[in-house]
Amino acid sequence: MPRIAVDAMGGDFAPEEVVKGVARVSLESDIEMVLVGNADRIQALLDAGPYNPELISVRHASTAIGMGEEPREALRAKRDASITVATRMVAGGDADAVVSAGNTGACVLAAAKNFKLIRGVKKAALASVYPRQTEYPGQDVFGLLLDVGATIRCDAVELAQFAVMGSAYARRISKQPAARVGLLNMGSEETKGGEVLVEAHRRLRSLPAVNFVGNVEGNEIATGRADVIVAEGLLGNVVLKLLEGISEVATSLALQAAHESWRWRLGMAMLSSGIARMRDLTDFKTYGGAPILGFESLCIKAHGRSTAPAISNAIKVAAKAVRDRIAPEIADAVAQIR
Amino acid sequence: MPRIAVDAMGGDFAPEEVVKGVARVSLESDIEMVLVGNADRIQALLDAGPYNPELISVRHASTAIGMGEEPREALRAKRDASITVATRMVAGGDADAVVSAGNTGACVLAAAKNFKLIRGVKKAALASVYPRQTEYPGQDVFGLLLDVGATIRCDAVELAQFAVMGSAYARRISKQPAARVGLLNMGSEETKGGEVLVEAHRRLRSLPAVNFVGNVEGNEIATGRADVIVAEGLLGNVVLKLLEGISEVATSLALQAAHESWRWRLGMAMLSSGIARMRDLTDFKTYGGAPILGFESLCIKAHGRSTAPAISNAIKVAAKAVRDRIAPEIADAVAQIR
Repeated sequence: MPRIAVDAMGGDFAPEEVVKGVARVSLESDIEMVLVGNADRIQALLDAGPYNPELISVRHASTAIGMGEEPREALRAKRDASITVATRMVAGGDADAVVSAGNTGACVLAAAKNFKLIRGVKKAALASVYPRQTEYPGQDVFGLLLDVGATIRCDAVELAQFAVMGSAYARRISKQPAARVGLLNMGSEETKGGEVLVEAHRRLRSLPAVNFVGNVEGNEIATGRADVIVAEGLLGNVVLKLLEGISEVATSLALQAAHESWRWRLGMAMLSSGIARMRDLTDFKTYGGAPILGFESLCIKAHGRSTAPAISNAIKVAAKAVRDRIAPEIADAVAQIR
Repeated sequence: MPRIAVDAMGGDFAPEEVVKGVARVSLESDIEMVLVGNADRIQALLDAGPYNPELISVRHASTAIGMGEEPREALRAKRDASITVATRMVAGGDADAVVSAGNTGACVLAAAKNFKLIRGVKKAALASVYPRQTEYPGQDVFGLLLDVGATIRCDAVELAQFAVMGSAYARRISKQPAARVGLLNMGSEETKGGEVLVEAHRRLRSLPAVNFVGNVEGNEIATGRADVIVAEGLLGNVVLKLLEGISEVATSLALQAAHESWRWRLGMAMLSSGIARMRDLTDFKTYGGAPILGFESLCIKAHGRSTAPAISNAIKVAAKAVRDRIAPEIADAVAQIR
């Protein structure tokens, strides 16, 4: 059985919601979990509700890194932070993967510090799922976008490796045997986007292991044209946050509208089941989490605003990724393109 | 009176909608316009409806560049294309500004070929308005994003100049005396985004002529935190097209929903005035257009799918920019930061 180290202190609603999520998983699966953080607080929270003690253990960590802290400095100053302890447990073989809803930069840096890059991989990438329109019945309602912030700028080889890693993840986790891969660019032609993107396009086209559908433009992110979209971290990060931001703005505009007129309020009530469906689909808080791909061990970064259900999902995804041997899958795929 | 050269052959609905837009402006303003393109077709279209012949003249151009053509090759092969003729008219003093709904790359390259960069400006930028939430009553419902595709990668000086140019445009056209300027980045801290963005941040902070509000993240694009957002072309282009794409996906999802249930159909009907308001706000076809900033002469790029009202708006914006002397304003502002 996979054993998941869970950063109990990371996230806007930690440790309460994290512990709640872990307790829930212990009652509905056989996944072993280690809650890492302030042992007294964790135990008190566990005792407040039902859980299966056979699947949950607690590892004390004396400090934690806040959501707003500068990751590099915080990691240096707080050597016993929960994310560091959790990551070290995995590096030392005491657990198989890490889940954290904490400071994203700290997760990426803690992984970089304690995990080894898969042989041949130049840079790790943070991959995020996001909701999009589907093009055909049965297509996954989520796309995968990477990198969304582990890197800033990338060269062509790094982008091609992201495509290989993302395809491997989609193959194993989303059961998409030939995920369609797109290169995020400012035009559909292969000559677009400057040297790095032109070279990345050329490399991607020549990789038999990647089902490359060519350049993808901004308006195609929200459609189902590509299942895996590859971009350097700066670009991917802005895109992901923009998608989140728009979903928030839409919600707040709808609330405003409901106040403005009874007609609109009534209309909204009639649409409520549709709105709820849409909200579930576009609510980043309900997703399983974003895997950091490229290291020999896995870290799943759950959204900072994760509540218990999102934490549960992230733990289940992590366990599935361990069982499905995602890291060796990536290692094989990357070895083949060298 | 300003004299605007209008590319009659550019755009998905050219020349019909372009000529209709020009005819409309001739009846409701004193702006002089020159329709550039196939003279016979233009005249036939003009004759089909009312217009003021005193304000409209026609300049023949034997060819036109299609929306899907590779801009550089097309401009080389078609020396008498409507966009080239229109741009040359302005360069030669026969008109004061160009408006085109045609191939964006061709507009930018035609301007680059025939217009001079303002002294001191390193690169021109395509600036686009986009709808966003407002933060306080009276704030403009449109933000300005630049560059959205005239450049690919930019250095810190170029980004700082975009901020100066965007501020000048907001000051003159949107009457925002101190537009809030943000640098699009992957984090709010000044240390984020790599060398170029860190240096751009440092420069922007030190410019008294720019009301710099710091880094802006993806989720803040749709809010009113910054009135002018600065980014290199690759990033700005993906963001703008993503905004357009989401508005299209939302429309198509709403149509689907209306088919699925009578309850939703009824709800949508009750919301129709709100949906119409939202659609007007987020419909890129209804905007005035995107100015290419940094040249001594102005080119306004209207959306490719512009219909007559959008063309009219673009012409009025161009006339206003000429009257308000936007190019000299930018020249002054750029000279001050050197």
